[in-house]
Amino acid sequence: MKIKKRIFEIIQAANPDDKASKVFDISLIILILLNVCLVIMDTFSLPQKLQGISKYCEIVSVIIFTIEYLLRVWTADLLYPQKKYFVSKIKYVFSFLAIIDLLAILPFYLPLVFTIDLRVLRMLRIIRLFRVFKINRYTNALNSIIKVFKNKKHELLSSVFVVLLLMTVASVLMYSIENSAQPEVFKNAFDALWWALATLTTVGYGDIYPITVLGKILSSIIAILGIGLVAVPTGIISAGFMEEIQKEEKKDNQESIKYCPYCGKKINQE
Amino acid sequence: MKIKKRIFEIIQAANPDDKASKVFDISLIILILLNVCLVIMDTFSLPQKLQGISKYCEIVSVIIFTIEYLLRVWTADLLYPQKKYFVSKIKYVFSFLAIIDLLAILPFYLPLVFTIDLRVLRMLRIIRLFRVFKINRYTNALNSIIKVFKNKKHELLSSVFVVLLLMTVASVLMYSIENSAQPEVFKNAFDALWWALATLTTVGYGDIYPITVLGKILSSIIAILGIGLVAVPTGIISAGFMEEIQKEEKKDNQESIKYCPYCGKKINQE
Amino acid sequence: MKIKKRIFEIIQAANPDDKASKVFDISLIILILLNVCLVIMDTFSLPQKLQGISKYCEIVSVIIFTIEYLLRVWTADLLYPQKKYFVSKIKYVFSFLAIIDLLAILPFYLPLVFTIDLRVLRMLRIIRLFRVFKINRYTNALNSIIKVFKNKKHELLSSVFVVLLLMTVASVLMYSIENSAQPEVFKNAFDALWWALATLTTVGYGDIYPITVLGKILSSIIAILGIGLVAVPTGIISAGFMEEIQKEEKKDNQESIKYCPYCGKKINQE
Amino acid sequence: MKIKKRIFEIIQAANPDDKASKVFDISLIILILLNVCLVIMDTFSLPQKLQGISKYCEIVSVIIFTIEYLLRVWTADLLYPQKKYFVSKIKYVFSFLAIIDLLAILPFYLPLVFTIDLRVLRMLRIIRLFRVFKINRYTNALNSIIKVFKNKKHELLSSVFVVLLLMTVASVLMYSIENSAQPEVFKNAFDALWWALATLTTVGYGDIYPITVLGKILSSIIAILGIGLVAVPTGIISAGFMEEIQKEEKKDNQESIKYCPYCGKKINQE
Repeated sequence: MKIKKRIFEIIQAANPDDKASKVFDISLIILILLNVCLVIMDTFSLPQKLQGISKYCEIVSVIIFTIEYLLRVWTADLLYPQKKYFVSKIKYVFSFLAIIDLLAILPFYLPLVFTIDLRVLRMLRIIRLFRVFKINRYTNALNSIIKVFKNKKHELLSSVFVVLLLMTVASVLMYSIENSAQPEVFKNAFDALWWALATLTTVGYGDIYPITVLGKILSSIIAILGIGLVAVPTGIISAGFMEEIQKEEKKDNQESIKYCPYCGKKINQE
Repeated sequence: MKIKKRIFEIIQAANPDDKASKVFDISLIILILLNVCLVIMDTFSLPQKLQGISKYCEIVSVIIFTIEYLLRVWTADLLYPQKKYFVSKIKYVFSFLAIIDLLAILPFYLPLVFTIDLRVLRMLRIIRLFRVFKINRYTNALNSIIKVFKNKKHELLSSVFVVLLLMTVASVLMYSIENSAQPEVFKNAFDALWWALATLTTVGYGDIYPITVLGKILSSIIAILGIGLVAVPTGIISAGFMEEIQKEEKKDNQESIKYCPYCGKKINQE
Repeated sequence: MKIKKRIFEIIQAANPDDKASKVFDISLIILILLNVCLVIMDTFSLPQKLQGISKYCEIVSVIIFTIEYLLRVWTADLLYPQKKYFVSKIKYVFSFLAIIDLLAILPFYLPLVFTIDLRVLRMLRIIRLFRVFKINRYTNALNSIIKVFKNKKHELLSSVFVVLLLMTVASVLMYSIENSAQPEVFKNAFDALWWALATLTTVGYGDIYPITVLGKILSSIIAILGIGLVAVPTGIISAGFMEEIQKEEKKDNQESIKYCPYCGKKINQE
Repeated sequence: MKIKKRIFEIIQAANPDDKASKVFDISLIILILLNVCLVIMDTFSLPQKLQGISKYCEIVSVIIFTIEYLLRVWTADLLYPQKKYFVSKIKYVFSFLAIIDLLAILPFYLPLVFTIDLRVLRMLRIIRLFRVFKINRYTNALNSIIKVFKNKKHELLSSVFVVLLLMTVASVLMYSIENSAQPEVFKNAFDALWWALATLTTVGYGDIYPITVLGKILSSIIAILGIGLVAVPTGIISAGFMEEIQKEEKKDNQESIKYCPYCGKKINQE
């Protein structure tokens, strides 16, 4: 039981004084980054010898990731102490980070059971990179960004929702307008949706754009609304950062407040 | 009269405790989303059988939308109780949402009267999607975004006005500069206006751009002003969100204020 | 003298109660907008008859603009009453709006003296559109935008200066990298400057982009700095709008402040 | 020793009252700008005569830059008086500005020693342009921008880090999806990384984009996250500017504060 607790402390807890935990975290990051390099390398046509080394590294990494995954599941009951034994395991297995971990190792084992080629899926190992976020949680800076996003979650989702709505309407209208003029470019509403996205986000690849006058007018309206699309989340996030700063200032102030015994008012002693 | 009032409550009022109203709203959203899917589906070349189903669904939807539209017009006098009976009807018919509702159903009925093909116009059903905004009014998050836009309406419109002015001047100048070098690309001021839009909004499709030195210099000025174009509405909206937050904080503070009996000053008791 | 003063009041002063002044302003805007339409129309290939009408309208407009310009110069001494008679005239003639006015009428008269074709320059009439700003000065919304830009003038110019510096360095480096790979595309540093602009402002027309690995890495750095380029003016302008709002609030507060006779402190009576 | 101190004051210290120092700074800026013009001119194919003048100017400039560099190294011990003599020299040589200065002159001397052609490297003289920043340090406006960036360094770097993470994952996934459909366009993960950059920064050159449905969906997600990418640094910087303004206001307020003798509280006397 003591060993289990120690393992839990090392792999899950984020106690900055625990040296073993820190070593584990850093080794894990290095292994993840190594895997990222391997995945990127594999996309180039490598000589036979390097392919062998890459393959070998992959096997070792997946074995380590698998052991780590199993240890995390094993110690899940310590992560959620208030839950029942099996409930805590299931809860952990379906948590965001555990799913990412599983997706990173599963494509390696599947071909052993089924006779399918999952070479492409093996690249999913790269999404393990998101675990770096978890470890990065120590740094205050990233934390404050995440806090702002969490506080403003509802506003941001609402604006994304409005954008999706607008994109749908715009793409169907654009399809109606442009389909007869460019039947090969605007083949269906999905192509028009792709156009709406490229325009609203101001990416503008240039593979699809209206050529009729009506289409250009609609495109103008969408492009100007696209500026609003940038402005709203930026405004929300700016306000969020300002709020955070003011809260902290207030907290700093309150710690040094005394009250006047006469009228019960705050006495500022800066 | 009682039935009319009840129907009004169900279809117009947004009382969160009214279950029938909620069921009506949700059913309506589902029906609208179904129609959106149908419209998008219709843009793909479907097999005969699916086309029949799509056609059938459309007829049913339009009938429901028509009944709903008529009920809304019928109960319009309850929406504007201070107006006269017919005035309230006319006011409602010309309101933004009622026009959207009419545009969504009208293209279905027109071919029954006239012998024209309005297949494209039938896609207007999709703008009914904007009614989701109305229903979404419950959610606080979207509301606060709308509030900021309403508060800053004048500033935002002013900046759009300045942009349109700038675009007009830029496009005429660009036409003068580029027309002789690229007579097929910059055919007239409208083409140049299309370029000005793509540049100011930084979409940059790449279908039209200057090739002369003078044209490139003008384009540079416009592109840098394009950044300002993003900056101004973003600044306005950011300030709007901050204002909203501060107002709420002030309101929270004022609720817990007491006054010193001696000098009549506020006493902060946080 | 009285007539001169009255004319001055009509064409220069912005007294909202002066009806004649208002009528003059609105007529001027209509005439300017008509000229904008004419200039845009002229870029399309029109039938002979319409060309005649357009020509006729142009002559009438330029005569009115000329009279207006002369009246403004005549009444310039009333605009700057503290200056000497001729100094005020000269000061006015070299003011921003007067130069715009002159540029708008001059291209019409030049061909009468010299035997040159200034058809393109005649389009300069369109920059008269900027006079609408002047008239628009009444509206508070646009005013507050202008105020923010004026307050933050130095910061905004500084950031533009930094951007120009960065663009110059980036374009010379890019030319060195890409010239050997794409000698026709990156012909000289000016082409590279055009690339730097399209990248930093995120317009990205797609007519010029690096193809070498080193060039792509440099382009990545420039593109990410391009985001900063948007972020800095936006941040400055946002802060400017917030400052403006807080100043106004403070002013509102100060108008209703009383002081406690005992301790001399402010008494808030909201 | 006195001469050394005087030279140090002229070339390093930024005392606004020191006329010789000001003359030196301005001459240096003019020389740098002249070199920038020369470097840009050299990229055009010039006639023989102009090439000779350009070559001559280059030699003179490099000699002046070399003397300046040596003087700066010589007086480095006065810049870091608390360090030992040789430590201060080494510290200075490896400072950011000194490396830039060295890079600007080194490419001129290298061919004298080795038999290599460093024509391209000679363009590095242009990075001397960054020294203008140093001199520009006087202006308050640029300073306040730099201050905001320094205060928010950690948040900005964190967000850049998140973006790089996201780009890596997105590019590998995109490579897996698009490689089979467009083997020549998405040749390897580096090409996909180039795509990810163009999309996230919304530059969108249009040289590389997905054509499969899955690829377009991934691209949509990346493009929408790209808006967030703009929003986060903008939000951080906006908040930074606001903070700066509030700090200054607070400082202004504190200078005019008196305390009530009875309760020790602040007395506002605005």
